[in-house]
Formats: sequence, structure tokens, C-alpha cells
Amino acid sequence: MSEKKYRIAILGASGNVGRLLLDLLIKREFPYESIKLLASKRTAGEKIEAKDGNTYTIEETSHESFSNVDIVLASAGSSVSKEYADTIVKAGAVIIDNSSAFRMDPNVPLVVPEVNADALKEHKGIIANPNCSTAPLVCVLKPLAEKYGVERVVVSTYQSISGAGKDAMEELKESSRKVLNGENYEPKHINKKLAFNLIPHIDVFMDNGYTKEEVKVIDESRKILGIPDLKITCTAVRVPVLISHSESVNIQLKSPSFVKEFKEIISSNPNIRVLDDPSQDVYPMPIMATGKDPTFVGRIRVDESQENTFNLWLVSDNLRKGAALNTIQIAESMVKQGII
Amino acid sequence: MSEKKYRIAILGASGNVGRLLLDLLIKREFPYESIKLLASKRTAGEKIEAKDGNTYTIEETSHESFSNVDIVLASAGSSVSKEYADTIVKAGAVIIDNSSAFRMDPNVPLVVPEVNADALKEHKGIIANPNCSTAPLVCVLKPLAEKYGVERVVVSTYQSISGAGKDAMEELKESSRKVLNGENYEPKHINKKLAFNLIPHIDVFMDNGYTKEEVKVIDESRKILGIPDLKITCTAVRVPVLISHSESVNIQLKSPSFVKEFKEIISSNPNIRVLDDPSQDVYPMPIMATGKDPTFVGRIRVDESQENTFNLWLVSDNLRKGAALNTIQIAESMVKQGII
Repeated sequence: MSEKKYRIAILGASGNVGRLLLDLLIKREFPYESIKLLASKRTAGEKIEAKDGNTYTIEETSHESFSNVDIVLASAGSSVSKEYADTIVKAGAVIIDNSSAFRMDPNVPLVVPEVNADALKEHKGIIANPNCSTAPLVCVLKPLAEKYGVERVVVSTYQSISGAGKDAMEELKESSRKVLNGENYEPKHINKKLAFNLIPHIDVFMDNGYTKEEVKVIDESRKILGIPDLKITCTAVRVPVLISHSESVNIQLKSPSFVKEFKEIISSNPNIRVLDDPSQDVYPMPIMATGKDPTFVGRIRVDESQENTFNLWLVSDNLRKGAALNTIQIAESMVKQGII
Repeated sequence: MSEKKYRIAILGASGNVGRLLLDLLIKREFPYESIKLLASKRTAGEKIEAKDGNTYTIEETSHESFSNVDIVLASAGSSVSKEYADTIVKAGAVIIDNSSAFRMDPNVPLVVPEVNADALKEHKGIIANPNCSTAPLVCVLKPLAEKYGVERVVVSTYQSISGAGKDAMEELKESSRKVLNGENYEPKHINKKLAFNLIPHIDVFMDNGYTKEEVKVIDESRKILGIPDLKITCTAVRVPVLISHSESVNIQLKSPSFVKEFKEIISSNPNIRVLDDPSQDVYPMPIMATGKDPTFVGRIRVDESQENTFNLWLVSDNLRKGAALNTIQIAESMVKQGII
């Protein structure tokens, strides 16, 4: 890495991902010169004691916030990213955006560094971070696509509530308490009641009957893997889990593999950890993946119903690889490639 | 139905399913002459006020319990069913068994009445009730197999804890309370911590890396549908839900269909209710299916990644169609067919 140090702004600093962005910048020793925390008026003025020993004060975001900034790490939702992206780019900074605003824009690289770091070279000031279910999935699919080719993928997700924000997390906790006490409640920050329930509906419905969340997994996987006609389908389901997304994935390869080799191939991604020993009841679960960086993969087994097909179960902290961690890994990759 | 009335014994009367068997016998006006409640020594002596106005006392099960009984509805686990099945048959009674003990025995009909009621004619005293994830699945697959042929099925389950018994249900509640209070706990009746977590492991692991639960869904679906070479695979996951199992199902048909026609075909099973209107945020969820008889199906949509393929989401009260309801429907079908 160069000796250069960067002036960072975190846009959406008071949210689940914003807090973690600050932690990870410090923990991973990203070469920052300064960190500016930006959020809406609602949380402006709040002070955050960071692990680098500094106390940062959240500032209200305005179009003047981005002078003297090199990198904006944004996690404040699509509308905020759309509002400020032009200003940020014109100010000479780069925005690495966690929202879905620019992901499918052909002029915007959508990047998981272990998968398509090269795409960063084409950036025009905006880089998109993928959806929280997409990022761990493509980490698994990439080495398989390179080694065997991927014929078709069927994904069912089991997504935690933290992706929907802190208020939604709080609602799951509070409503679970109410259900346990035999009390009724009305959902406010979650679209339906999630306590001890499942909601097969994340983001809005599209005309074809899919949710936007499902379409994101399909479209973003194709873009990141660089396989525009990848055969992939998805059912996305919200589960009453606080942090970490899980996915049941059925993968048909284009050529044969064996379980042992399959495990070796996906382990070639340094951010994947295979946790798979049925004899010892070892497999990934959300509560063990939470707070950890790797994408954990287990339950890897041959699907006898079709040639060259495997089932697996992956679990990943959606606030990390699905959001904050990947965002910082993008910034790290840009520094390493000397393109920032 | 004939005028005949039957002497019933419920084996495992103190469990989740046993209680519901008693309720449903009464509610559905099954022609019973008497009901005997049998369980282990632990709950013998407990009194149950039933909805027919009678108070029943649970008796300890012994090999002498089955004289003067016509139908035994068993839901006390495999070992209990294995212990008493011979005695029951020799006593001249019929056992309709909820456990997995006899399901794959070629001499034992495995029955979902709307799917294969004819198989009951071959019974030799033992009839098996399928696994709680299998029963609703075959209800959906049967009309599709008849109309289009089914090429291949990929299932991911989202299974509630009630199938694991009352102690496990209580543990999910108690442990959720502890997690909300920031306390630690050790699982006792569930194999791992389930509160705000997911466990991709139900029943024991087999040599091929699948769990027995997954193998049950595969093998039992083939047997009930009468398609021994049906291409089907399954990943079974326990979710922190109290009652009702859900399944994300990807179905490739052998010939083309359209969403509207697909819905009409599966609705031909009177126990299936299609709940599918994305424009109104209508789709099945566990908390709305609980306590209801139908299998609810929604999120029906074309899977563009493969010819003649559909995704759907089904939810069914696992204590009902997956257990007690189907057991009683088997008894009703036998009465209707005049084979008991």
C-alpha cells in the first residue's frame, strides 16, 4: 500500500452499517487522515467514541459536506445516495455506495473485491456495493464458475432483520417480548409481524411476481460474476433473526466435481470458511457468524436428483460482508491498485 | 359414512399432536363410541377436559391397553410405535402412526388421503402418516404431477419447533426471553440454540451428508406420489417459529403451464388454499396458518432460469396437515371406503 492517507466521510453514520464502517476502518487500519461522520438532522450532534481514541460528532449532511474528502462510504439509503452522488463526484471524491441506487448502472462498477476487483479500474467516481445476500453468494459462485462453469443456481434466503435498520431490529426484540407475554402488537418498522414468524416479502413487489430483493440477487450476481445470462432464481424470506443472513443454495455445475474438491475450490476465496462436519454437528448458523468477517459454508453435499449438482448452506454477517466489510474491502482494493 | 361407531385410543395423548387429535376427533364429528387416552407413566393420571363435555384421564400405556379398541391414533415417537404395533394389530385394531417407524415399510401404506387414499385398501393393520414437511408438499405436487408431470423439485424448508415437542417449544420461548434479557443459556431439548437463530439440522445425519429429515421428504414424497424415481432434493432448516412449517419450492414441470392455470390446478385439492396477491401484500405466513387446516400456497411465479419451472412458497400448520389432521383424515377415508 502507498503511504498516502485519505480523508473519509461516512454518510449514514448513525445506522447499523455506519457504526460498523467506523469500527472497521479503525480495526483494519485503513490509512485514513480524517473521518467525518454524516447523517440526517435527527442524529446530528450525537457523539461517538471511536476505538481510535477519538470522539467524533455526527454532522448534518449538506451539499457542502464533501469538500476536503477523498472517499465517501455511503450507507444512508438510495434516496440519500442519489441526492449527493453528483456533488460528491464533482467535489473530486469517490463514493462507495451501499444502497441499490447505482448498482445496475452500466457506468458503475458493482464490486466484491475477491470476485471482480478489476472492475474498479473503470470507475467514474461511483462504486456500488452489492446487496447483502448477493455478496456472500458470488464469493461461493465465482471459484465454481471459474473451475467448472455454473449451469444454474436456485437460492432460498433466510434473512435477518438488521438489514432493515436499527428501528426494525428493535421492533423484532420488542415484539418478541410482547408475544412471549401474550400481548398483541402492530408492526411499524417491519412490513408485517416478524416475531416468531416468517415474511416471504423483502423490498417491493415487481410486475413479474418477484420482490425487488429477489431481482437484486439475480441481476447483481450476473453483473458481478460477469455472466449476463447466468441461470439463477431466488426466493427471499425474512426470518426472526437479528444479524446474519443465511442461504440454501442448489448449484448445478457444467462439469463434474466431488464434495472434497468442491470444498477446496470454494476455499480458494480467503474470505470463505468451510464449516462442514456432520459427524460433529458442525455447520454454520447465524449466531456463530455474527460479528465475524468470513462467509461460512456448510452442508455441502451431492444433489442426486441432477447431474453435477450440489446443495449447500451459507451464512454471512449481513452487516459485514453484505455491507460494511465489503465497502471497506473495496476501498482497500482501490488503494492497493493505486486507483485512488 | 356408515352408522358404525369406533373405539379410539390416542397413543401419546399428552403431546402437542395427541391433544390436537382429541380436539379434532370431536370437532370433525368422527364417529367414535369411546376415546381412550394413553401416554407414558409420566403423565398418566392427568385429566383432560375435552370439547365433547367429557373428562378423560390419561392412562399408562401397556400391552393390555388395546383390547376393545378399533383404531389407535399414535403420536408417541418411533420407539413407542415399534413396541406396540404388533400387539395392536394382533388385538384386531388398526394403528395410524405419526412416527417414522413404518413409513418406508413396503407393507405399510403411507397416506395423504387427497393424494393416495387408494393405498389404504392394501393395509395390514398399520398405516403411516407422513412427515410434517412431506404432507403439504405432496398435496401441491400431486395435481401438478397428474396434469403436467413433475420433472424435478428443489425444496428448502423453514420448520417450526412444535414438531420437536412441547418441551422444545417451551425452550424456544424461555431462551428467547433470556436472549432479550441479555442472559446466556444452554439448549436442553433442542440440539442447538434456536432463539433468534437457524439450525440447518433436523433429525440425525446420514452417511451421504443429508439429514434424516431431508431424506424423509425425498423418500416419502416418492412413495406417496407413486413416482419412485421422482427427482427431488431437500434442505431442512429449523427456524425460531413456534407452529407451522414453510417451504420454498422450485418445481420443474414436464410440460408448460401458466401462473393462472398453475393456481387452478393446485387448487383442485380442496385442502389447498392459494393466498397469492402481491399487489395487496398477500402471501402465506406461519402465524396466519397456525390453527388452520388448509395448506396455504403463495408467491407462485415463473422461474425464468429454466423451461416449465415455477417457484412457490407454502405454509401449513405442522401439527394439523403435517400430523393430527392428516391422521384423522386417514381414519375418515377408511370409514368412507368401508375398509374399517
